[in-house]
Formats: sequence, C-alpha cells, structure tokens
Amino acid sequence: MPVGTQGTVKAVPQDTLESLGAEIILGNTYHLYLRPGHEAIRRMGGLHKFISWPHALLTDSGGFQVFSLNELRKVTDDGVRFRSHLDGSSHFFTPEHSIDVQIALGADICMAFDECTEYPADRHRTEESLRLTIAWARRSLDHFRANTHAVPWFNPKVCRTQCCFGIVQGGMYTDLRRQCAERLVEMDFDGYAIGGLSVGEPRELTLEMIAETLPFLPKDKPRYVMGVGYPDEIEQYARMGVDMMDCVLPTRAARHGLLFTSEGRLNIKNKQYAEDQNPPDPACDCIVCRRYSRAYLRHLMQSSEALSGTLNSIHNLAFYLGIMRRVRTSLEAESSTLRTTN
Amino acid sequence: MPVGTQGTVKAVPQDTLESLGAEIILGNTYHLYLRPGHEAIRRMGGLHKFISWPHALLTDSGGFQVFSLNELRKVTDDGVRFRSHLDGSSHFFTPEHSIDVQIALGADICMAFDECTEYPADRHRTEESLRLTIAWARRSLDHFRANTHAVPWFNPKVCRTQCCFGIVQGGMYTDLRRQCAERLVEMDFDGYAIGGLSVGEPRELTLEMIAETLPFLPKDKPRYVMGVGYPDEIEQYARMGVDMMDCVLPTRAARHGLLFTSEGRLNIKNKQYAEDQNPPDPACDCIVCRRYSRAYLRHLMQSSEALSGTLNSIHNLAFYLGIMRRVRTSLEAESSTLRTTN
Repeated sequence: MPVGTQGTVKAVPQDTLESLGAEIILGNTYHLYLRPGHEAIRRMGGLHKFISWPHALLTDSGGFQVFSLNELRKVTDDGVRFRSHLDGSSHFFTPEHSIDVQIALGADICMAFDECTEYPADRHRTEESLRLTIAWARRSLDHFRANTHAVPWFNPKVCRTQCCFGIVQGGMYTDLRRQCAERLVEMDFDGYAIGGLSVGEPRELTLEMIAETLPFLPKDKPRYVMGVGYPDEIEQYARMGVDMMDCVLPTRAARHGLLFTSEGRLNIKNKQYAEDQNPPDPACDCIVCRRYSRAYLRHLMQSSEALSGTLNSIHNLAFYLGIMRRVRTSLEAESSTLRTTN
Repeated sequence: MPVGTQGTVKAVPQDTLESLGAEIILGNTYHLYLRPGHEAIRRMGGLHKFISWPHALLTDSGGFQVFSLNELRKVTDDGVRFRSHLDGSSHFFTPEHSIDVQIALGADICMAFDECTEYPADRHRTEESLRLTIAWARRSLDHFRANTHAVPWFNPKVCRTQCCFGIVQGGMYTDLRRQCAERLVEMDFDGYAIGGLSVGEPRELTLEMIAETLPFLPKDKPRYVMGVGYPDEIEQYARMGVDMMDCVLPTRAARHGLLFTSEGRLNIKNKQYAEDQNPPDPACDCIVCRRYSRAYLRHLMQSSEALSGTLNSIHNLAFYLGIMRRVRTSLEAESSTLRTTN
C-alpha cells in the first residue's frame, strides 16, 4: 500500500496511482485529524470523496504518529494526551476517539488503537505496553461495532460498511506476540496486523517476529505487517503469507533520490549519472523508465525541481507494485500446481 | 508557450503537457547553460532528447536572465559579463556565445541576443540600449547562419535545422520600436519577437507598444510577444495578430495558489474554500476540474504538499491553452466568413 499521509501519496496524482495499479492506499489518522480535521472530511462525505480515490483506503489509528512525533505525550490507561506538531495544541486520543475519527474519515479499513512499543524495551515494559494494547483493542472493537452506522457513506440497504483490524504488539518477545495474537483472534477482528516492527531492531528480529506470529493469525483473514520494508523484504514476507504491507520507503526514498531497480539501489544524485542516457531501470517498463533518462532525473534533482519527486516516486511505486504482482502470480501458479498434483 | 525554465515546466510531467495540448515549450538558455551545461546537453543529443520532449522547443537568448538576475553585470559593446546566481562564478555572454549555446541546446527556435531595456528608461538610455540590441541582432544572425550545421540533430539530407528570431526593443518609444523593427526585418529573421514589455510599465503602454510595432513586422512570419500575460491580455494580443506568447504566470501563480477560472481569479488558500466541493472552475473540463474539489486543492496547499503545485499548474495551463484554442477557432471562423463574403 502506497502511503498517502495527508490525503495524497506525496507528489503523485491519483490517476497516476491508478495507472500504476495501486488498489489501496493508506491515510494517516493523526495528520488528517489535525488538518483538515475529521469533522470537515465527514461533512464532505469521507476521505474517498475528499481526495477523489474511489478505491480501497485504510486509515491507521493515529497511535504510531502520537508516539513517534510527540516527545511530551502522556499515556494513561484511558488514552494518550499529546501536542499537535503543527501548532502545539493539546489533544487526547482514546481508543473510542481514534475509532470515532476513523469512522468520520470513512476508510474501508480502520485500525484498533494500540501502543507501538519502542525498541529496545525490556520484558516488564513490553508486558505493561501489551496490557494497554490488548485492553485498547477490546475497547476499539466494541466502539467500532456500536457505531458502524456512523460512517459518512453508510447505506443500511446494502449493509456495506467499514471493517476493523486488530494490531499484534509484544515487542521482541515471541511468547508475548503469541499471547497478543490469541487474545485478538478471540475478539474476532476482520483482519490482523503485526505492528511494532521496523522500529530500529535488526532485520533478523523483524523476520523472526513475523514468522512466530503468523501461525497464530487466521489464514482466511487479511494479515498485514505494518511499516515494511525494502523490496527484498516485502517479497520475502509476502511469500511467508503476509497479505498486506505499507511503507513510506518507496516514496520517501524517491524524494531523496534513491531509486529501487532490478539492478539494486541507485542514488540518482551521483555524478556518474550526469550524462547517463539509460532509463533508471532498463528492465522496468513504467512510464518513467520508458520516457526519461538517468541524466534527466539527476538534473531535476540537482535543480530542486518538483518533477524530480514525482518521477522518482512513480518509478519506485511501479517497482514495488511490480514485485507484489510477480509474487501474487508466482504464488497463484504454485497453488494451482499443488491443486493439480493433489 | 508554457515555460520550462530548467528543462521542465515546473511540477508538470511531459505526458501531461502533451495531454493538455501544449505544442511548444520554452527553455531558458541562462539556466540550462549554468546547469547541467550546454555542452552536456549537446553530447546527449540536444534538449529535445534530454528532457524527452519530441515537440517544438524555443530557447531564449539568456539575455533577460543575465539582466534580471545579475545586479553586478558589466555590459560592453562586445557582450555582458555576469556572475552565476548558483555559485558566483564569472561568465561572459556575447551574441556569438549565446547563439553557440542555443545551437548546442538545439531548440527549434533560437532567439537573438538582446538587451532588455529596463523600465523606466529615458530616451537617451533607450537609444543607447537599442544600438546594442540592433548590433547584437546582426551578429547573432550572422553567427547563427554560419553555424546551422552545428546543431546536435543536424541532418544534411533533409536540410532541417533551427530557425532564429530577432527581438524588437525600443523601450516605450514608438518611433524607436518602429526603427528597430525595420532594421530587423531588413536582416530577414525567421520570426520576430517584441521584447522589453511586461517589465513594470502600465498595461496601456504594453498594449500601445504592441499595437505600434506589429504593423512593421511581416504577417507571414511568426510574431511573438515575450513574457505576457494575464488570460485577458493573451486573448487581446492574439486577436491583434500576435502568434506566440510565453509567460511563467500560469505556472508560477499556480504554485502560489492563484487559479485562473472562467469566473475570474480564485485564491485557493482562502478559508472560504475549506469545504467547497465544487471543482476549481465549473466550466473547465481539465483533468483537475473533472476530478478534484476546491476543498482538496486548498488542503494540499495548506499542507505544503507537492501535489498542490502539480494540480494547480495543470489547471492553469489547461485554462491558458483553452483560451488560445478558442481564439484560434474564432479567428479561423472569422477568416473563413471573410473569404465566403468576398
């Protein structure tokens, strides 16, 4: 899922996202709550309509930004008090409030409000944090179920509404991860995310936590690893059974001139590309690689031109979405072979 | 002509320009000379290939930027010494050098090197400045004619090469404008520009200078007014017989949130648009007006999102190009009516 923090996948128009085959994008509840405000978006019919994205949308719970962008936050069992990074104003998020905001935004998928445990965290701290996450998951789901009719586009005739995913925390302790997964599955969410990863831990630990958590999450519901990753990571996790991932990496790296290609990473700022007339990735058939040279992309970057972020982001998203398409095709082929052999 | 200062119409991808119906864009010799450098662009086959724009291109002479971006320039009969706004390095532009740079860039249309007379300028100063412009026009054209084979894409078989336009200066003195026009026409350029306008003078003066100069420029060659203007201006000038205009206004205003619409100017930053779900211009069928609301464009601007500049620029360019299309259709209809009545 490309990340559309403030209601836009940075520098990429919606019709381009469609042409790249993006089927779902993510919006950040924290950012949209602060600006333009969830009530304004509710009055305008929800996020799909506001940003003109008639495809799937997911909103996070706001928890991750509350924890990562706020040094002065205050956490109680009830919720989290934090200050806006925009104007310093004070705000209080509870699980109920996060869900209310997400219902107003009206994405297809809401996320339970959780505490993203920092890394490193000792066992005692992780257990305390997990206690909150599990209690907040229960409250999130109860509040969600009691208010599904409140989504701006609710239609009682077709019974179509949002769905809500739980988030497995538990730091780097596999038994806590399992305990959390089992508790959430008892609550019967519509899907399950594995959160609290890619927060600074070595990659082997990320992999271990995913591998040890997946078996406790039902295969017939979406399994989503939050905030990953590099191209080889997302391929690896998808092959392990992960259905969804989101990451700012393809777009953020693009804005800094880092392109992902079939030949590895390419820093387009490097002088060696000054007169390189090859496409960014000779094996890629995206609209950027079909039309522009490395030399031109380097020039745009050196000249601080807005088109630089746009073209780099389009290529990186095309590369990421291409990986996922190939993985899906390959998994489908494998499963059809299995069916035939059985 | 949309302006592509540094080899990009700011924030707008080339395929979008094509879909908007842009047939020619302008590149700035001064900027491209400094970065990435005209020799690099020559080695890569010229500007068309470098920026992937297989349509018409025009380069200015560099003179306007040398005069407007350099307070410490030194002008002699031979040329102008100036410092780069990028790194302070010293450079010397003569008519011959400007033409050499423009041949290396390889646009379809080159411009003679001129001195853009400042406003206000008294008669003596204007005469002195005009003396330079006329001498430099002669030198520009002679050097251009002697070096047409040097364009990167020169093909002796088809005899296809660049063409070169002269620039009428003369400040706000109609007799000097006429004198300059007549001298340039004697030299037999491929087209003629009226420069030194829109430099701070009242609009009635701009109009007067254009009206008093046009009759002395041949009707069967392109007549180009440089650096104008607002939507109603370009329509007015086109109806007076001006064939070409360029202006940064549609794209620069767009980046500052100023949209041109059939209902007048609209400052998208205004709070009144915060929940306005109408398209920027209800009478416009551009890709922005068909998909996005004022509220969304305002949000992008308030959030300093890159997509803001892109979408605003696309709409303003669509609006400008739409005006020119309507003027052309209307002039064609008028001339066909004339033919019929005669």
